[in-house]
Amino acid sequence: MEAILLDPGGLHYQSSHPEPTPAEGEVLVRVLQAGICETDLQLAQGYMGFRGVLGHEFVGIAQTGTHAGRRVVGEINCNCRVCPTCRAGRPTHCPRRTVIGIDRHDGVFAQTVAIPEHNLHAVPENVTDDQALFTEPLAAAFEILEQVAITSADQIAILGDGRLGYLAAQVLSSVADRITVFGKHGVKLLRFGHRGYEVVQIPSTDPAELPRHKFDVVVDCSGSTTGLPMAIHLVRPRGTVVLKTTVADPHQLSLASIVIDEICVVGSRCGPFAKALDALASGEVDVDGLITDRYSLDQVKPAFAAAVNPNSFKVVFDVGSLSP
Amino acid sequence: MEAILLDPGGLHYQSSHPEPTPAEGEVLVRVLQAGICETDLQLAQGYMGFRGVLGHEFVGIAQTGTHAGRRVVGEINCNCRVCPTCRAGRPTHCPRRTVIGIDRHDGVFAQTVAIPEHNLHAVPENVTDDQALFTEPLAAAFEILEQVAITSADQIAILGDGRLGYLAAQVLSSVADRITVFGKHGVKLLRFGHRGYEVVQIPSTDPAELPRHKFDVVVDCSGSTTGLPMAIHLVRPRGTVVLKTTVADPHQLSLASIVIDEICVVGSRCGPFAKALDALASGEVDVDGLITDRYSLDQVKPAFAAAVNPNSFKVVFDVGSLSP
Ligand SMILES: [Zn+2]
Ligand SMILES: [Zn+2]
Repeated sequence: MEAILLDPGGLHYQSSHPEPTPAEGEVLVRVLQAGICETDLQLAQGYMGFRGVLGHEFVGIAQTGTHAGRRVVGEINCNCRVCPTCRAGRPTHCPRRTVIGIDRHDGVFAQTVAIPEHNLHAVPENVTDDQALFTEPLAAAFEILEQVAITSADQIAILGDGRLGYLAAQVLSSVADRITVFGKHGVKLLRFGHRGYEVVQIPSTDPAELPRHKFDVVVDCSGSTTGLPMAIHLVRPRGTVVLKTTVADPHQLSLASIVIDEICVVGSRCGPFAKALDALASGEVDVDGLITDRYSLDQVKPAFAAAVNPNSFKVVFDVGSLSP
Repeated sequence: MEAILLDPGGLHYQSSHPEPTPAEGEVLVRVLQAGICETDLQLAQGYMGFRGVLGHEFVGIAQTGTHAGRRVVGEINCNCRVCPTCRAGRPTHCPRRTVIGIDRHDGVFAQTVAIPEHNLHAVPENVTDDQALFTEPLAAAFEILEQVAITSADQIAILGDGRLGYLAAQVLSSVADRITVFGKHGVKLLRFGHRGYEVVQIPSTDPAELPRHKFDVVVDCSGSTTGLPMAIHLVRPRGTVVLKTTVADPHQLSLASIVIDEICVVGSRCGPFAKALDALASGEVDVDGLITDRYSLDQVKPAFAAAVNPNSFKVVFDVGSLSP
């Protein structure tokens, strides 16, 4: 099958990579579309030392199992379901877990992928493939509501004008009345402005140029080590900073203001797929027009070049079609 | 009056410093005893650029106002009581606040100090001066219970075998059954062991030598930049790290595991004086024997030398006596 592999030499397209063999409990899924996300860019640069088929955002058709023949999306953590962490209700933190396309499990930049059946969710009829592709990042945005109690009066700031910021803004606007988005890219901020969010184009990443102690909750979707110092500056004393960006590099940070201002910094990762699919089906969250670039798997280089282009929103591999 | 001043040249004893003039709402307090805390050591090294009379932990006798003639302790944040932050119930974060002996307000290493009357709390009859001296750090330990929901089944780790660690261990043991204390100093850890806490003497500050993902809540009372990386290593996914140490220096830190493990890091500072005084009066918290060194104000150099000695628990200035 066709696949994009990551090895010590970098990313490679292979036209005849062997099909995956499903492990116990796994089913084969034929990939329709797969999205490139920030984590893929970091993995491609060697972060976490991942080797194998890259990719974890997808919509596909289950080949076997209870969902056979239906469109599915899939949670990315392959957990054991029996360890104390899994039984304590934290399966996404299972210490034995592998992660699809991220950690010791082949991913979705391929024609076929093997995925644990209990990770799969059927895609509602009225959700298009293009929409379903956003289930995973949208679930990650919904995770914020699971972690932080937000009320309508809370002033929310979102750092970052990319995909995750856009999804987080929509999820949080279902609860809070006032959302302000800080970003560097005028073109991207237009999209937020059209939805009625206040937008602030920041000239630099110097926290001192931002309003201080203004927001109850700040969500860092900046994808950069410069995000947290800005978030700490923006948030009010006893406010909450939600860290969404997995930044690979260690970085220099003064923690004194976290203590002095009694700020809560909470890391936030994968979230509830069911809520994301519901929001897509009901139209509560709008992801139309977010896909700016489409490539085939053999166009790995231009696709990844597009994904780092600041004017791209979402870059997608068109892998298969609905007809068999 | 006698006082210890901090100026750009360092700490100085002055035998005839002018008495403070109380501002509106302030009363004069004659200091009986004053304690040296970690923050004083940092201020003495130039942190926050404080200039004036140092010191903020004290027990004294109010000279005027409703508490006149009675023993009092005092909250250290002098807030405005009218700004939005004060009215939102966060007076310790008032943006106009000064802080006694820390930020633009003369402190308690003096025979007399001027303090806002509403900051004062009368000391219960059965609480000794030596005990009352621990009200401020004990209140800071009680703040943990205000910020984090802790249950009896939670496994708690405390990093640091000093004063704050000892007070935090006692406060948390009122709620949680299992407390483990990690510290570097065998002598200090004995004190924790005698109270029935599990103690672990750590050979180094390398997180890799500590158990991973073991504790529901980790309280960093280490007073060092090495504390947070250790705490992040010790805490379980979705657990909570309470940061108690105001570390002056910026430092290198990788935040990836905060996001991957969805850890909550919460800064924690001043706390409820009333709860601390109640706990001292009821004997729920035992602070007896913690004062290891006593000096007069003119012995500023040996006193501060003792305060950095790892075998000292609490170094105190005996300033006045109960008899007028
Ligand atoms: Zn497990
Ligand atoms: Zn105020």
